[in-house]
Amino acid sequence: MIALEFTRPPLPLLVEPLVRHALEEDLGRAGDVTSDLTIPAGTEAKAKFVARKPGTIAGLIAAETAFRLLDPAVGFTVSAPDGSKVTAGSVIADVTGPARAILSGERVALNFLGHLSGVATATAALVDAVTGAKARITCTRKTLPGLRIFQKYAVRCGGGFNHRFGLDDAVLIKDNHIAAAGGIAKACARVRERLGHMAKMEIEVDTLAQLEEALAQKPDVVLLDNMDLETLKRAVTLTKGRAVLEASGNVTVATVRGIAETGVDYISSGAITHSAPSLDIGLDF
Amino acid sequence: MIALEFTRPPLPLLVEPLVRHALEEDLGRAGDVTSDLTIPAGTEAKAKFVARKPGTIAGLIAAETAFRLLDPAVGFTVSAPDGSKVTAGSVIADVTGPARAILSGERVALNFLGHLSGVATATAALVDAVTGAKARITCTRKTLPGLRIFQKYAVRCGGGFNHRFGLDDAVLIKDNHIAAAGGIAKACARVRERLGHMAKMEIEVDTLAQLEEALAQKPDVVLLDNMDLETLKRAVTLTKGRAVLEASGNVTVATVRGIAETGVDYISSGAITHSAPSLDIGLDF
Amino acid sequence: MIALEFTRPPLPLLVEPLVRHALEEDLGRAGDVTSDLTIPAGTEAKAKFVARKPGTIAGLIAAETAFRLLDPAVGFTVSAPDGSKVTAGSVIADVTGPARAILSGERVALNFLGHLSGVATATAALVDAVTGAKARITCTRKTLPGLRIFQKYAVRCGGGFNHRFGLDDAVLIKDNHIAAAGGIAKACARVRERLGHMAKMEIEVDTLAQLEEALAQKPDVVLLDNMDLETLKRAVTLTKGRAVLEASGNVTVATVRGIAETGVDYISSGAITHSAPSLDIGLDF
Amino acid sequence: MIALEFTRPPLPLLVEPLVRHALEEDLGRAGDVTSDLTIPAGTEAKAKFVARKPGTIAGLIAAETAFRLLDPAVGFTVSAPDGSKVTAGSVIADVTGPARAILSGERVALNFLGHLSGVATATAALVDAVTGAKARITCTRKTLPGLRIFQKYAVRCGGGFNHRFGLDDAVLIKDNHIAAAGGIAKACARVRERLGHMAKMEIEVDTLAQLEEALAQKPDVVLLDNMDLETLKRAVTLTKGRAVLEASGNVTVATVRGIAETGVDYISSGAITHSAPSLDIGLDF
Amino acid sequence: MIALEFTRPPLPLLVEPLVRHALEEDLGRAGDVTSDLTIPAGTEAKAKFVARKPGTIAGLIAAETAFRLLDPAVGFTVSAPDGSKVTAGSVIADVTGPARAILSGERVALNFLGHLSGVATATAALVDAVTGAKARITCTRKTLPGLRIFQKYAVRCGGGFNHRFGLDDAVLIKDNHIAAAGGIAKACARVRERLGHMAKMEIEVDTLAQLEEALAQKPDVVLLDNMDLETLKRAVTLTKGRAVLEASGNVTVATVRGIAETGVDYISSGAITHSAPSLDIGLDF
Amino acid sequence: MIALEFTRPPLPLLVEPLVRHALEEDLGRAGDVTSDLTIPAGTEAKAKFVARKPGTIAGLIAAETAFRLLDPAVGFTVSAPDGSKVTAGSVIADVTGPARAILSGERVALNFLGHLSGVATATAALVDAVTGAKARITCTRKTLPGLRIFQKYAVRCGGGFNHRFGLDDAVLIKDNHIAAAGGIAKACARVRERLGHMAKMEIEVDTLAQLEEALAQKPDVVLLDNMDLETLKRAVTLTKGRAVLEASGNVTVATVRGIAETGVDYISSGAITHSAPSLDIGLDF
Repeated sequence: MIALEFTRPPLPLLVEPLVRHALEEDLGRAGDVTSDLTIPAGTEAKAKFVARKPGTIAGLIAAETAFRLLDPAVGFTVSAPDGSKVTAGSVIADVTGPARAILSGERVALNFLGHLSGVATATAALVDAVTGAKARITCTRKTLPGLRIFQKYAVRCGGGFNHRFGLDDAVLIKDNHIAAAGGIAKACARVRERLGHMAKMEIEVDTLAQLEEALAQKPDVVLLDNMDLETLKRAVTLTKGRAVLEASGNVTVATVRGIAETGVDYISSGAITHSAPSLDIGLDF
Repeated sequence: MIALEFTRPPLPLLVEPLVRHALEEDLGRAGDVTSDLTIPAGTEAKAKFVARKPGTIAGLIAAETAFRLLDPAVGFTVSAPDGSKVTAGSVIADVTGPARAILSGERVALNFLGHLSGVATATAALVDAVTGAKARITCTRKTLPGLRIFQKYAVRCGGGFNHRFGLDDAVLIKDNHIAAAGGIAKACARVRERLGHMAKMEIEVDTLAQLEEALAQKPDVVLLDNMDLETLKRAVTLTKGRAVLEASGNVTVATVRGIAETGVDYISSGAITHSAPSLDIGLDF
Repeated sequence: MIALEFTRPPLPLLVEPLVRHALEEDLGRAGDVTSDLTIPAGTEAKAKFVARKPGTIAGLIAAETAFRLLDPAVGFTVSAPDGSKVTAGSVIADVTGPARAILSGERVALNFLGHLSGVATATAALVDAVTGAKARITCTRKTLPGLRIFQKYAVRCGGGFNHRFGLDDAVLIKDNHIAAAGGIAKACARVRERLGHMAKMEIEVDTLAQLEEALAQKPDVVLLDNMDLETLKRAVTLTKGRAVLEASGNVTVATVRGIAETGVDYISSGAITHSAPSLDIGLDF
Repeated sequence: MIALEFTRPPLPLLVEPLVRHALEEDLGRAGDVTSDLTIPAGTEAKAKFVARKPGTIAGLIAAETAFRLLDPAVGFTVSAPDGSKVTAGSVIADVTGPARAILSGERVALNFLGHLSGVATATAALVDAVTGAKARITCTRKTLPGLRIFQKYAVRCGGGFNHRFGLDDAVLIKDNHIAAAGGIAKACARVRERLGHMAKMEIEVDTLAQLEEALAQKPDVVLLDNMDLETLKRAVTLTKGRAVLEASGNVTVATVRGIAETGVDYISSGAITHSAPSLDIGLDF
Repeated sequence: MIALEFTRPPLPLLVEPLVRHALEEDLGRAGDVTSDLTIPAGTEAKAKFVARKPGTIAGLIAAETAFRLLDPAVGFTVSAPDGSKVTAGSVIADVTGPARAILSGERVALNFLGHLSGVATATAALVDAVTGAKARITCTRKTLPGLRIFQKYAVRCGGGFNHRFGLDDAVLIKDNHIAAAGGIAKACARVRERLGHMAKMEIEVDTLAQLEEALAQKPDVVLLDNMDLETLKRAVTLTKGRAVLEASGNVTVATVRGIAETGVDYISSGAITHSAPSLDIGLDF
Repeated sequence: MIALEFTRPPLPLLVEPLVRHALEEDLGRAGDVTSDLTIPAGTEAKAKFVARKPGTIAGLIAAETAFRLLDPAVGFTVSAPDGSKVTAGSVIADVTGPARAILSGERVALNFLGHLSGVATATAALVDAVTGAKARITCTRKTLPGLRIFQKYAVRCGGGFNHRFGLDDAVLIKDNHIAAAGGIAKACARVRERLGHMAKMEIEVDTLAQLEEALAQKPDVVLLDNMDLETLKRAVTLTKGRAVLEASGNVTVATVRGIAETGVDYISSGAITHSAPSLDIGLDF
């Protein structure tokens, strides 16, 4: 399958500073006092990351990096790579090496792995719910501060697609921008006058009337915000492929299939990044 | 009430680098292209942070700092300070000033405020459930990477207490430490031989037999992990105040009162930091 | 004119670390030994940034920030804002305040201002040469390391448009990607399968045959690399508006008008960022 | 030849942060989306850095570091080391290894190598023009922000010498310092009273009268600014070896030999660092 | 002996940034000009760290890291590990490898090693003076800025114990806190109301009357500040083991045994960190 | 007196990161728990920095910055500026403002002020001992890691002069360099061939024979290492002003006058930076 091969984790160059920060946060000034005081220096250990609940895995590179930054002698072997669906009891990865390093890094590794697998699992639940429909699940900028590149990657591991990574990589015109510019047409004119040819433009609309006004500006994407299913269907009909359509608002596992069946192209969810519960994963020695 | 007065937010010195990092993550290289292109430079705006759901507020300093770092001319007036319980529709704070800065900072401010208020709300739910019992709710090190000082603060805003901030500020002897050291007594002996007088020692136990063995070492705290209510009660009786008792495992709003009524001193929950859903808060212009 | 109003300089949040780094580079450990030893502490000074050659100004925020970081008491008043065309002898800005700070910051301020105005001036020369044609001048990723956000901004000040800010904000498929993927169609298929709806896709081609193959994939943009004028014209005819066309290769003030007259939409130049000579600007006391 | 052996590149400790910053600037948050999506993970590649124009090479350590930071498996073999003169078509270095890493690092490597070789080439042009004369070519503090240690090194690769690295490693008294101190004698007295024995003192003069006044203070170096050839000759005669003489102002390949023949010891040029066009180098697969 | 095995140096993760900063401080922009200009590139060297005076060693990891950061090819073999007592002439460690790297790192390595061994030596002098008494020697927060984790570790190498690592890892109520809160009882009440169960509380007292007042609050530790020996004895008698007792003030090698014999548990010294002279160590080639 | 006016403290730009690091080191993650819990938010305080022992002050900018970074509302008024000689009981500065900020910053402020005043005091002792002789006291690179710019400044406050700030700002040829290069003449030849005109060259010698050999190379400075007084006198006679002479080795308050009377120009001491005891300063409320 092409898709999984091309869901590449963030580069080590970008991962390391974030994992380093998390380790510093946990080690403080004195380090892992308990392990240092109780475990003789040469002690070796073996442990397994095991899923306690079913879900989709994401974030192994962060876990591995945590151990490697503490001690390059730690070995890390993956059984269930990022993107895998696991059941309760599945072994995800094996860790071997100096016991002190494994115990000192355990919590940071689990904090990353549990959280990011939680995001992937929440994403996969929406993705699975729309199986067969053309609609794709996409994330938003409603991410947890400092974790964006990891959360965006976890969304991909769960089968979702990424929306903007930040305010700078595409234009998304919302109601306040329209008000300040003096209308959709004026806002778009200003954008067209200065925006380069490599950035897309999306316009957010609440009503079909606004949709028509927006389509006249030939945007790449229109965001249909908080429309009911009937209105969404009419929006699809009205648009006739003139723009990619993204639906947002009240997206849950229960509602997402209905939204997908209206014919929209993308369905965006903030909850998969801002409210995904951690996937329960343990480290068994 | 003394308690609220003394729940001080993290110092600006510690807050600013984290908020700056979150802004850089969102602004990327080109900044808020949409606002820059659509909003005339001198445009002023007024907006209100409004709760869309009931909950407990935490993290206003992060929201305020986000705007201030973008433009010192932004004004920020708080109506519902950290620790307040709000209802759906409550105004939390007013923001006034340059429209570009307010729109550029909106998402980062909301990402912090929604998440931290979510943590405070989840904490408060447990705290409220044990009202009248002596047991206190406490957090763990199961936090989201990079957000520890904020999450620990949000726990306090929700009425909870903080456990260790990291591996270095107290000793917590778990099963793997005990195994490596050759038993509880040997592990404790090593700790006593090198640990200073300003750090506490906690021992984690699974059974009453281990509890007795642990108490013989005069720990400051014993962590009773995953015991049923009956065993917890017997643990309290057996301990007779010789150590502070902390219970953990399967702590939910449904179970926490029962645990509190066993007579333990502290009840710790990882979910309040690793799985708290964001509190729904909006910024209305 | 809308255009100039909406060419906003990079945010202070992004500017300050770069200017701070430049100051640290120049001040070293001991600071400005000469000024400290020769100028009495309270001495005030007035100075003017004056253009010694005609050109287009860019980078005043960097100059102002250099002085402000050294001493907030320095006053900085702009006469010729970014984007202005100046003649030899034009006053660009006035600086007043503590003589030590002005002298200590002079070189860093001039290094930024001269270089970025050089980029703007080189850009404006191409922009002016295509006046009246629809083609827009755009930059590339051939920037000087560490100066990208400043150079991209200077291009806008000179009337140009920005291409990608980095490898992450759009897809640009080149010959090596095509070879590795097994052809244009396969490369595009892989991209379509995983790329979100907010990022554009551009394909680079060298021949008209490749252009036809590329257009079949419905890219947003096609990059026509190193084609002669005749081939460019045929490419425009062949494309019939199915994609935005960007021409690159051998773009100089002498050749650019001819390229523009072929009917392409964008003309990209690496030289305006990697080889622009500094604009000669002095600070007169 | 001793000279080349002792032109050591900046230490990896100093190089790595600058290259890392350049990579982060180019990779943004999402990394090299195009290569990640089109190139299968295990694909290997071979490529050559080839000069498209004649010139002098500098900056290979930056290019090599860019690839190594992306993937330590990339091999880098140098054919034309820093300081070499190459002709159009010369192979400079070979790169082998993971195709994704090579393509992701290509632009940053070329941006460093092209720019620094441009500086070396511009320097070598002046150095070659004064062959046989005793005058040495030296740089200034007119460098591009953030690139000083690299540019200073590139000047050495081109056969030039380095002037001050910053404001702190020697004293250079200019007209404004003299005015503030109340004359050359007073300025020098203040310097002598506090300056240690390991730092040199240079005085800038515009006229022969000032030169005499300066020489009375026994400076290590006198900077003769913007004097014509006749005046320079008289300055050399008048000085009689009492100070090292540096000439600056209007230094080009056309004028530099004439300046050298006046008998001055050093000729300084800002253009070799602030206005050197990039040397055209490509990476051929 | 268990103690030495469990005196672990700070983790490489925490050590490297501090050593890197020290190297950058010494190398500046141009690096080790002298070694680069005089030593041919391939020259190898062997050298030994030798104690010129007797003392206790601490900080070898910093010395080793300094060389490794400059060149991973440097070999470092320890003869007298941290915590060892050496005599004048003892070899502490051997260094072999590239001569340039050894000479460039020599001063930074010695600056760390001499200073930290000085701290360990000063600590050991107090520790040795109380041999046989139960009192332990402990440090304070009176450390040199930026060196706290190293100095705390050096104290352990000298046989001492660590007090708080910072303001955040335990409560220490002093006179100003008491005054602001309105008395010892009120200050303690506020602390008890909000402090978690994993942090200790210490109260500083100057008189026996204050000691009684403090003991009524059941603190973990009482700090007896600047009491004479007679008063200290009475404090011990009065306390009857209800709290750990720490004595401070006028602690020297001459006085410390007398203080220990009063029966206090800990004796704290600021001088071992803020005023310890460097241990004289040389690097002999 | 000119001298004091021109002893400028390091720029805020350079001071702030170091003070910020020291504060972070002390505040950890949870901040000043004690003050936060015991002192009501609005409490104001006044305090005085008072010398407990006589000495020379240095480092007030670090103390002031510590408070300002915690809370800009803290006022700081200096009575005894850097360079002042104080007696026991002298007030050095007054601090007023929020009690929490003053107490939270007290230790960091005192750690800087006590240490740097200690360095200034140790320097002044040597300076005073050579009053009337022409010899100047100078420091070395034997500084405490991370504190170099502060310690160098403190030396100036004590009336001393600064030697090299690092390895890069002048050449100092020692025995190992000479050995590697194949003799003094060869080492100097290599230096002359590549070193610019703005850096000085010093040669270290142990014997008069070496001195003669060194003088033949026309160095700016010769370092006479560990020579007895008689040899120093002969070195001065032999040199006849052909180079600046610096003496080092066994420099104490007892020996320094004798060394100065041999006629050398500079006397360097490592102990004033690596072994200066802290000056006892307190903060009285």
